[in-house]
This record gives sequence, structure tokens and C-alpha cells, in this order.
Amino acid sequence: MANRIYIVGMGPGSEEMMTQEALHILGQSEVIVGYTLYIKLLGGRFPGKKLLSTPMHQEEERCRLCFEESEKGKKVALVCSGDAGIYGMASLMYEIGKAYPDIELQVIAGITAASSGAALLGAPLNHDFCVISLSDLLTPWERIEKRLHAAAIGDFAIVLYNPSSHKRKDYLMRACDILLCSIEDGRSCGYVENIGRDGTKVETCTLKELRGRKANMFTTVFIGNSGTEIINGRLITKRGYQIEKSTDICRDN
Amino acid sequence: MANRIYIVGMGPGSEEMMTQEALHILGQSEVIVGYTLYIKLLGGRFPGKKLLSTPMHQEEERCRLCFEESEKGKKVALVCSGDAGIYGMASLMYEIGKAYPDIELQVIAGITAASSGAALLGAPLNHDFCVISLSDLLTPWERIEKRLHAAAIGDFAIVLYNPSSHKRKDYLMRACDILLCSIEDGRSCGYVENIGRDGTKVETCTLKELRGRKANMFTTVFIGNSGTEIINGRLITKRGYQIEKSTDICRDN
Repeated sequence: MANRIYIVGMGPGSEEMMTQEALHILGQSEVIVGYTLYIKLLGGRFPGKKLLSTPMHQEEERCRLCFEESEKGKKVALVCSGDAGIYGMASLMYEIGKAYPDIELQVIAGITAASSGAALLGAPLNHDFCVISLSDLLTPWERIEKRLHAAAIGDFAIVLYNPSSHKRKDYLMRACDILLCSIEDGRSCGYVENIGRDGTKVETCTLKELRGRKANMFTTVFIGNSGTEIINGRLITKRGYQIEKSTDICRDN
Repeated sequence: MANRIYIVGMGPGSEEMMTQEALHILGQSEVIVGYTLYIKLLGGRFPGKKLLSTPMHQEEERCRLCFEESEKGKKVALVCSGDAGIYGMASLMYEIGKAYPDIELQVIAGITAASSGAALLGAPLNHDFCVISLSDLLTPWERIEKRLHAAAIGDFAIVLYNPSSHKRKDYLMRACDILLCSIEDGRSCGYVENIGRDGTKVETCTLKELRGRKANMFTTVFIGNSGTEIINGRLITKRGYQIEKSTDICRDN
């Protein structure tokens, strides 16, 4: 029978926000592989496991560790923060897995920052939305710009991942400038820092204000669509025509 | 102290795919409110709770039930499939909640079909993506068309929710026709039916083939971006330039 490697989404950080399935799979694994920081967090929760880690930017090496352990007959889980299939390691595992045809891969979905951040802000993604990463480490900036333009033209609610880092301090400002070409200054926005960890921060603001805010690598940014409102400090995107229709129903009653 | 209503995402269906947090909150609730079908599913898992339900299209009534029970001092949870903040009840609760200023609302994120369907297909959302509902029950079709066009122009991976229903049998075909204006016939696509339930089905195909496929209300559809490939029957969207860079690193070694 083929060996199988599980690629497990851990959600935003706290064990409470992991699925039952993810916890069961980690419990049954003999080897857990991941980014150094996450492996440190997991060590205490899963004693007796072989824990292997590689630092940031050594993602390919991390994947190869999984296949090597699996070839030894070990039950292996690779962990990623959020959802392993959303800016995570899943696609790289499938690419590298071409060289290991006897090993099956299975992704276990986790809560991504779009979901967990939205829950903290209210309901900013309650209609059609786009998710865009501002990191140009693997994507040319021109493609990111093109997607920001398209998202604005389509009147999507927008989630921005990786809005800033040490080397890209002004990227959120640059993204806001692109959006401001076709979206009004006062558009309702919000952002969340350190979701599911100590120091969680939740803020709402206008798009113009967002342009001047400081983001870091633990920030997730939300830009509303044309119908999004800030209600009692929460960022709320309506379900299309729901509200108008509901109001009519109330009047009829 | 203010009462608080929890708006809980149940994920795709199986209890395994719920978060710890969601299960704990349902365990501590006295009243659980939801769509008739979900409440039936939950009844066996949480004996001793007051279970209240309303059928489909009675969403406002369902929200009001929550506030009425909360005003009586009960601990209330409203359950939604997937993530309550993604095409779920969260925003309607905040709207109706304006009339109940003493009641706090808190959304508990769940696994949405974009995540759970992607995990079954491989890694179709491993780069920037859009989520679009084809239901024109609450959104004019023209706006849906505009978003499909924008998503194609932006070269996003695309997830389609509600691709079909009894009254909208040809909507997936219509959406494919719009996408085919700017996307090639052979674009890699896939779809998933009955995620996390009996009868789960996972298929990959080209965009042209997708146009002729039958979808139902339990189908979630994925359209790749220009770099998406079908690898061993899995739909894989690369992390930007990752692969090219990795290959170079290998050669240097």
C-alpha cells in the first residue's frame, strides 16, 4: 500500500482553531515537519514525535525531508500555518512529489487568515471576494498591480496577505494608491494583527486612512466592496440585496 | 454584562472538519439555531439543547430567533455550513443586531468550501484567487458577469459557489462562456461535489469540458490561473516563481 504524507493546515495559531481532523492526524503521525517556529510551538503538544524543521526560505528542503521520511516507512505530516493550500506548501509538495510516484499526498484544510481575520472584524467577506498577496518574492510586482486593478474594477471585497515586510515597508501604501485610482477615499476597510495569538489587534478605517497605516508580516488587510459599511466598529459586507428585501418584508408584515 | 450570540461556521459537514472552538461553543450553548437540515444533523451530537430551525429563504426569521432567545438570557449559537462569514449569516446578524444594542455578536470561523474543496482537488488556490457566487437570488446577474470578466482579466484562480440550482440549470455554462472570452479552452479546471459528506466526487477537466458538465447546489467549481496544471489527476496552482527558482537551486547543488 502506498505511503501517504498529510499536508496539514494549522489555522491561525491557537490549537482551538485547528480542526478535529488536523489534530487527529498530527496525533497519529510519527514525524512532523514544518517551519522552525511552528515546530517549536507543536513540540509541547505532541511529545514523542520526531520533529524536523527548516527555516524560512528553505521550503523545498522542508518538502524533501517529508518524502525522505516517508520513504523510510514513517507516517509523516507537514504542517503549515493557516490553510496549507492557500499560499502554503501544498503545491510545492505536489511538484516535488512527481519524483516520488509511490507516495500519496493529502491536504487537510485549515482556517486561513481570510476567514479568521474576517471573523474578528465582523463580516467583511460576506459576498464575492479576492485574496491577493503583496509579496513580490515569487510574483512580479506588475502582476500584483494588475490583480489589484482587476479586483477594484470587479467591485470585489479584497483581502491582502503579506502587506509588508522588512524589505517591503511601503507595499501597503503602493497597493492603496493603485486601489484609489478606481475606489473612493472613504471606502470602508479594516485590518487584523496577530490573529489567534497574543497581541491580537482589530482596526477599521477608510481606504485613505489605510494608506498611512503601518502593517507587518502578521497583518491581514481587508478592503470592502462598494456596499461595505462599518457598523458599531465592525466591517460588514452585505449579502447582495438581502437587506433591502428584508426591509420590504418587514414593512409588509 | 452583555449577552453574546456566537455565529458558528460548521465547515463542510463532517464533525471532523469543525474546529475545536466551534465544538466547544456548541457544547456550552443552551440554544442552537440553524437551517432545518443542519439542526437535524446536530441534534444527535448535542442532546439536551433547545434546537430551533427555519427552512431555506427564512434567514431573517432565523436571525430574529437568535436575538429573542438571547434576550431571555439564554446562551445562543447560530450555526451555518462552511464559514458563517462567507456567503453565510454573519452580515445579516450584524444588520439585524442594530436593533439589539445590548447583545454582542462573535463570529467563529469555519472551513469554507474554497478551502475544503481545494484540499480534495490538490492545490488549486495556492496563489491569488477570487470567490464568486453564481446565485442571482440576491445579486443582479450583470454584477456577476462583471466579476467573472474582472477575475479572468486579473488572471486569478477562481472558485465558483452555487454554480447551479433547479431554477438556474444553465448558469455554469453561462459563466464558462464569459470566462472563455478571455481564457483559453484548455485551461485546467476541477470541481468537487458533496465535500465532507457521503458521495464526495472530485473531477478535473478543461474549461471547455467544464462548460458541458452538470453542477448542482452541492458542487464547488475551481478554474485555474494561467499557470495551473493537472498533475496526476490533481489541480495544482504554483506559488508564483517558486518552481523555476527551486529547479535552479537544484542545479547549483
